[in-house]
Amino acid sequence: MQLVWLVPAAGFAGVAFALWLAWDVLRRDTGTDAMRDVASMIFEGAMAFLKRQYRTIAILAVVTGVLIAVIVGAVSEGVKDIVRSDTGQVEYGAKVIDHWKEGLLTGIAFLVGAAASALSGYIGMYISVRSNSRCASAATRSLREAITVSLRGGAVSGFLVTSLSLLGVSGIFLTYSRLLDNPPTIAPFLIVGFGFGASFVALFAQLGGGIYTKAADVGADLVGKVEAGIPEDDPRNAAVVADLVGDNVGDCAGRGADLFESMSAENIGAMILGVAIYTVTGSIEWIMFPLVLRSFGILATIVGLSSVPFFARDDGRQHPMTPLNYGYYIVSILSVIGLFIATKVMLSDVWYWFFGCGLIGIATGIAFVYITQYYTSGSWRPVKEIAKASRTGPATNIIIGTAVGYETTAATAITIGLALVGSFVLGSHADIAGVPGFSSGVFGTAVATMGMLMSAAYILAMDTFGPITDNAGGITEMAGAPASARHITDSLDTVGNTTKALTKGYAVASAGLAAFLLFSAYLDKVKERLDIPLTEGLPIDLSNVDVFVGGLLGVMLVFLFSSLAIRAVGNTASSIIEEVRRQFREDPGIMAGTSRPDYARAVDITARASLRQMIAPGLLAVGMPVAVGLIFRFTRTEDSGWLAVSGLLMIGTIGGIILATFLNNVGGAWDNAKKYIEAGLLKVPSSNPDEEEVVLGKGSDAHKAAVVGDTVGDPFKDTAGPSLHVLVKLLSTVTLVMAPLFIS
Amino acid sequence: MQLVWLVPAAGFAGVAFALWLAWDVLRRDTGTDAMRDVASMIFEGAMAFLKRQYRTIAILAVVTGVLIAVIVGAVSEGVKDIVRSDTGQVEYGAKVIDHWKEGLLTGIAFLVGAAASALSGYIGMYISVRSNSRCASAATRSLREAITVSLRGGAVSGFLVTSLSLLGVSGIFLTYSRLLDNPPTIAPFLIVGFGFGASFVALFAQLGGGIYTKAADVGADLVGKVEAGIPEDDPRNAAVVADLVGDNVGDCAGRGADLFESMSAENIGAMILGVAIYTVTGSIEWIMFPLVLRSFGILATIVGLSSVPFFARDDGRQHPMTPLNYGYYIVSILSVIGLFIATKVMLSDVWYWFFGCGLIGIATGIAFVYITQYYTSGSWRPVKEIAKASRTGPATNIIIGTAVGYETTAATAITIGLALVGSFVLGSHADIAGVPGFSSGVFGTAVATMGMLMSAAYILAMDTFGPITDNAGGITEMAGAPASARHITDSLDTVGNTTKALTKGYAVASAGLAAFLLFSAYLDKVKERLDIPLTEGLPIDLSNVDVFVGGLLGVMLVFLFSSLAIRAVGNTASSIIEEVRRQFREDPGIMAGTSRPDYARAVDITARASLRQMIAPGLLAVGMPVAVGLIFRFTRTEDSGWLAVSGLLMIGTIGGIILATFLNNVGGAWDNAKKYIEAGLLKVPSSNPDEEEVVLGKGSDAHKAAVVGDTVGDPFKDTAGPSLHVLVKLLSTVTLVMAPLFIS
Repeated sequence: MQLVWLVPAAGFAGVAFALWLAWDVLRRDTGTDAMRDVASMIFEGAMAFLKRQYRTIAILAVVTGVLIAVIVGAVSEGVKDIVRSDTGQVEYGAKVIDHWKEGLLTGIAFLVGAAASALSGYIGMYISVRSNSRCASAATRSLREAITVSLRGGAVSGFLVTSLSLLGVSGIFLTYSRLLDNPPTIAPFLIVGFGFGASFVALFAQLGGGIYTKAADVGADLVGKVEAGIPEDDPRNAAVVADLVGDNVGDCAGRGADLFESMSAENIGAMILGVAIYTVTGSIEWIMFPLVLRSFGILATIVGLSSVPFFARDDGRQHPMTPLNYGYYIVSILSVIGLFIATKVMLSDVWYWFFGCGLIGIATGIAFVYITQYYTSGSWRPVKEIAKASRTGPATNIIIGTAVGYETTAATAITIGLALVGSFVLGSHADIAGVPGFSSGVFGTAVATMGMLMSAAYILAMDTFGPITDNAGGITEMAGAPASARHITDSLDTVGNTTKALTKGYAVASAGLAAFLLFSAYLDKVKERLDIPLTEGLPIDLSNVDVFVGGLLGVMLVFLFSSLAIRAVGNTASSIIEEVRRQFREDPGIMAGTSRPDYARAVDITARASLRQMIAPGLLAVGMPVAVGLIFRFTRTEDSGWLAVSGLLMIGTIGGIILATFLNNVGGAWDNAKKYIEAGLLKVPSSNPDEEEVVLGKGSDAHKAAVVGDTVGDPFKDTAGPSLHVLVKLLSTVTLVMAPLFIS
Repeated sequence: MQLVWLVPAAGFAGVAFALWLAWDVLRRDTGTDAMRDVASMIFEGAMAFLKRQYRTIAILAVVTGVLIAVIVGAVSEGVKDIVRSDTGQVEYGAKVIDHWKEGLLTGIAFLVGAAASALSGYIGMYISVRSNSRCASAATRSLREAITVSLRGGAVSGFLVTSLSLLGVSGIFLTYSRLLDNPPTIAPFLIVGFGFGASFVALFAQLGGGIYTKAADVGADLVGKVEAGIPEDDPRNAAVVADLVGDNVGDCAGRGADLFESMSAENIGAMILGVAIYTVTGSIEWIMFPLVLRSFGILATIVGLSSVPFFARDDGRQHPMTPLNYGYYIVSILSVIGLFIATKVMLSDVWYWFFGCGLIGIATGIAFVYITQYYTSGSWRPVKEIAKASRTGPATNIIIGTAVGYETTAATAITIGLALVGSFVLGSHADIAGVPGFSSGVFGTAVATMGMLMSAAYILAMDTFGPITDNAGGITEMAGAPASARHITDSLDTVGNTTKALTKGYAVASAGLAAFLLFSAYLDKVKERLDIPLTEGLPIDLSNVDVFVGGLLGVMLVFLFSSLAIRAVGNTASSIIEEVRRQFREDPGIMAGTSRPDYARAVDITARASLRQMIAPGLLAVGMPVAVGLIFRFTRTEDSGWLAVSGLLMIGTIGGIILATFLNNVGGAWDNAKKYIEAGLLKVPSSNPDEEEVVLGKGSDAHKAAVVGDTVGDPFKDTAGPSLHVLVKLLSTVTLVMAPLFIS
């Protein structure tokens, strides 16, 4: 049990660090009265939305939790111990917990997971919307201070999410094994409910937040910039506060819940794998390893994040991304060291194979940082190509953008494929106690996932950095701060766009790596029910009609879900547009600048509409795997239920990863193609012989075309894409918990 | 061998009927001198393109054919007989043909398949571009005559494609079994090369044609309508003839090759399945059944097609789609009768199960006709929703269009899923000679596919109807024919849009149904190499890392291929735009209407550019499965090669079906949303109290937004989407032929 003490230590250290960061941010100067005024409107709007959203989610979660307890209790056969048989196989042993108790404990784990996810989202958001005016105020002084404030504000969310996930999983594991006096082998299966709870909240948080943010953004633009002809973030636009609120509820709360979910599900899946090895080797280290590795990750991130201000320079020549990159390198280097210690100490004499797997995971994380930058930043071919295509109008902008977006799936699929095969091969070399048929390859992919997720808190801090700087920009604009401050927040905003794109790439990659591990957990669950030894293969035959049709339905689910999410943005946006039009019409003083629009009403209407719109896609995601499992189970052969669900899960995951990659990257590329043109970088040969080139900048037809692409990309990259990551992981957890339903 | 005489009879009857139709069309009046003039330019352009395209394809095909002969000869172990063992299993027996001869026969079959596909495309095109001026001339007289001419012209292609596929497959089967004195069991495996040849030509024909047609369309619109401000089909636009040529080479030659391929591959796959049953039952009927059923289909279509003019009325109130629908019903009813006779006579005492499977297939075909109409025609919610979204600009038009497009995948996946499971279940009930482990379920899905494809000639006739009427419209415009003629061709053009969309839905559905059958053929090939009895299962385990990563790469291939295809249109379009601009610049007389633009040069430049652009995606499609198989075989375990290819094939097929559905349907819906607005059907409440509603028609901002959507949809629905159907089927044939390469 060496190193296991690190888990609570790192968990509480992470929370303490988050609190210190929060204190450090909150004690800072909140700027001018005008800034405070705007910030408080954003704060109130964001909190009102969260409250309303969490109320809806809480109702759904409690109902689902009770349903889970009842369903699992009614259809399960109880939890069996896992033992090593005389033939050396790992198999299921005596029943340890009866089925009603299993249902109860799973339901409780679900509610705890849901509550922990909601809590980390809430506190992170709270600090984030408190940081924006402080960042705006800091921007009136220096770039360095502005970066420090926004990164620290973002890091509160990052550390809370990772620490609460760690403490939650380890706490409930401790409770369900030690305190309830059960063998540790069964606990991971009981806490899968925790992962389901986390993904359940994550899905609705991401969907609701994603719909809100983009509906407000699109709505504010269409009614303000297009119809009324007033600039972005103009205080006369009643939707502008809703837009600023949206940045927080989408990127901060939504993405936080997404990564909370990734880490929890991946931790639990890896612990389930560890159980089989523990049964053979007798060392509980195999179960605890994922938690310890995560702990090293938190410690590495504390150091890396604290180092960022030291790299930031105020000489005006440094790109604001540079200090963030340095901090990320430090996190990566320390993660490698932590990985080395953890594998060496805990994984006995096969440690080096898994050290290699972990390195692959860390390298994959770094690779995605670069892949995403290549495809979505203005310095390389793809974005330039889209900007050039804008010269012939919006249609070619969309056509070439789509081509670029589809192209980005290649780098993603190849990188994930290499990482999976590489870590599987390395893991397979590790001969763990020579159990016949036992595959350590899957454990290798689990270690790669863990290695990648070691830097999750840092990535999340960079992600939340985005909405804080975006808000700070809006506040400087609305509060009439000096141009120099606006210049600083603008440069930070561009970086924020990049870091937001990075996080999405990171989330997709972690979903891809974790997929494999979560399937194997699902199959272990099926084996329990079918009384098949864990070390025996259970092929999911792709040429089986149920698997194939399940897969077809899985990919379809991914598309249909995206359709609902995208349409939800359109529907919500039209509610906002109508409200702003109404305010303009009924109070001409708004346009004249003599009376203030009713921001709160616009915020409230957006919140109501987006929460109404999140229900259908959310229920589709949770309900369809269950429906497919039940329909196939009862209309086809006795194995058809779980086979069709396997196909839906695995092939749906592939489809989800690819489609999410497209949606995220194409949106980022369109956004930056517009920014590329706004920066005056798009030039054409002049027809006037006196000058060589004409700049097609802001206001040109090319710019108008690029704005169309940017608007189209908004619901792709901030609503449908990120919700798809969550959907993919939710598929794993919902099928894991509901597996007994699909098996006769 | 009852009914087998029908195969040559129906094959030659189909050819004879096609010749009669051609004679009937060609003898008709070719219209005014002006019409003849335009038509001859289209004719020359189309033939020049085809000649150039076929030269390129011929070179590629000959090289590939030789490569196949060499590779199969070098790596194969020769062809083994299939026998029934003492234990009742069906397994591979003695070697009948040595490996070099196998390579040679496969290579020859490839070239014959390629040549037959090219021939049917060529002749069909020839008649199609001869029919357009005759249709234009007929339109000056009556709707009924215009429908008759265009449908008969299109049917030449339909009948040649189906008949040549039937005669080709059966002829080469006869040669390779009887004439070369081999047992019939081995022939299907030798003629898989025929299917590969057909799909090889189909891919390049569809890609080249698809790129040409949309590049010309987009280019002509951008440079004519947008830049120069002249109407569509205006004779001053040098690209207008290229646009009219494009309709033929894309929709006629491309789709013809696509369906030639579908039918051939499906026929061969079904015969391979039949071999196992023949070995057990001793009745060769099981091998010949697919050919006989196809024969009934041709006969049914001859009757159905001949009946259409009797349903057409000239009273001005009949929708032109109505007589076409009646004809389709007749084909369907006669197909059911043919299916009944064929199953009853040939499939011994289990015939009724397979009769049921065939009915499912016919019903699936009909279902797709309705699903496609619902999603792409202006009478229902989806297109109206897109038209409404155009009121707020191009961005919302694209956003809602994408949401609708993603939504359409649901109906497609569910219908294909139901048809697959339904026919599999019915087929499984058929107890064929009680072979242990033998699955007649897959044969059930094969019969469903055959049932569906019985009406292929009719569907194809309706498809080629599209470009003929489209061309006729262009000719009436350019030749200054009376408005009444233009009115008739316009109404036929709208129908043509619907029938083109139908054909694509039909092609997707047949690819989905056939997929299963073709996997099973691939697995049979793997079993031969691994010496596993045919009746033994060979699970492709989705939780195997090679299969999973293969699947990830398969879905990625589908997206990357689409990216290349879409980008190719953009690149080619810019070549045309530059050429037209050059002509306008260098000869001001063109714009003044005093001199005639150089149409031929524009046609030629488009042809060269599009053929250059088709190479990369084409080689990607053929090369990637082979590359993946080789890489996994040589860097991983001995089974990894064929396993990764299985994943790529099966999961790539799912991804391809879904993505093609999206691309086809969203394009059709955007097109018809524009037409909906042009027809004056989009209305908004008026701000003027005197009138109730304002029509947002042609020229309104909503219309401009809808034009953007239409332009974006062009390369989706006419280049990437249709090429994806072919890609999906090509994946099956290339892996089938190359299988020995992937197995150690």
